Amino acid sequence: MERTLDHQLDRIRQSLLRMGGLVEEMIAESESALVERDSARAERVIKTDKEVDLLEKEIDEMCHTAIARHQPTAVDLRFIAAAMKINNDLERVGDSAVNIAEAALVLNLEPPLKPYIDLPRLSELTQRMVRESLDAFVQGNVQLALDICSRDDQVDGLYKQIFRELLTFMIADPKTVNRALHLLLIARNLERIADHATNVAEDVIYYVEGRDIRHGSL
Amino acid sequence: MERTLDHQLDRIRQSLLRMGGLVEEMIAESESALVERDSARAERVIKTDKEVDLLEKEIDEMCHTAIARHQPTAVDLRFIAAAMKINNDLERVGDSAVNIAEAALVLNLEPPLKPYIDLPRLSELTQRMVRESLDAFVQGNVQLALDICSRDDQVDGLYKQIFRELLTFMIADPKTVNRALHLLLIARNLERIADHATNVAEDVIYYVEGRDIRHGSL
Repeated sequence: MERTLDHQLDRIRQSLLRMGGLVEEMIAESESALVERDSARAERVIKTDKEVDLLEKEIDEMCHTAIARHQPTAVDLRFIAAAMKINNDLERVGDSAVNIAEAALVLNLEPPLKPYIDLPRLSELTQRMVRESLDAFVQGNVQLALDICSRDDQVDGLYKQIFRELLTFMIADPKTVNRALHLLLIARNLERIADHATNVAEDVIYYVEGRDIRHGSL
Repeated sequence: MERTLDHQLDRIRQSLLRMGGLVEEMIAESESALVERDSARAERVIKTDKEVDLLEKEIDEMCHTAIARHQPTAVDLRFIAAAMKINNDLERVGDSAVNIAEAALVLNLEPPLKPYIDLPRLSELTQRMVRESLDAFVQGNVQLALDICSRDDQVDGLYKQIFRELLTFMIADPKTVNRALHLLLIARNLERIADHATNVAEDVIYYVEGRDIRHGSL
């Protein structure tokens, strides 16, 4: 039995939400793996990524089927084009969470370099961006999407601050180099997750309004 | 006048080739900016990225138009879906080349840390992967695409070797930390470019054969 286009789009929407929930949880778990020195959580993150990878393929397949069967136009077509991109960005968020978890596994083998303050802040900022970019997608909320795009500077600022602090550690004491490098890798991956959330927000604006605001053409 | 679908697909193909040529040149130029300590080249890379960003938007627009007007199915739809992804990957290759150029600008302010041997090798490996992934796309050459996917391990190996060497520098001499970190950033970006080329190769296989080989399901 042929399903209606609306039904197909709703399935795509639900699957993206499920994927968004998974990757958001992965970021939170990778943060706990670091802060609470709980390597079992890091292992769970690495395992969950397989589920995310499978979902990515399923969602792509759903999008292709929706186009082939229903020949959507205008806003429906923009929705599907946006869904394909969001799907790709969420999969890469999952990959970044895995990178963070793997770095946490290495860091948990040595005593902590310092109390973690800025990294959890950065992690929570980016988790919120991922969550709200999906809220914006589901609600077609352009205002929220624009707000998320504007937060990217805050993330970049925090990342640069962490970078400078870790650089100081490495220069002051060679014994810190390995740990500082892995913490830097975590910060870098969080910064990239925020970029992906920003991409999602830009795709929401494109799908709702038909405006392509990428690369600062606002 | 309405153009035929074949004509539209050909325009998309030509634009992707143009974009591929630009980003390949950007990687080569960012390498020269580092090896020949030529900051003017780094500036050119940063400038060229604007052109790449514009092309990305144009190609997306062409893909959406082709779907909306011609309602393609089967291999034509897969071609367009692959083109949208390749477009996205090439844009990110451009971003990585910009990151490399910016690191080269910083590095050119200090005396070189060491003769660059492995980084140029890594750069040339990845340039070749980008170029050949686009050849595979234009020719629909699955064998070449599979070959490119298999080279990703070689790139990872070289990246890890560079990482270990730079780590040794940083531990041995705090004065090298800033330079070693920026060289590491360059290596990391080259490794990511290779990942993008691998994505392109996977998209070629999907478009030609309808098989989704992502995430190691070969």
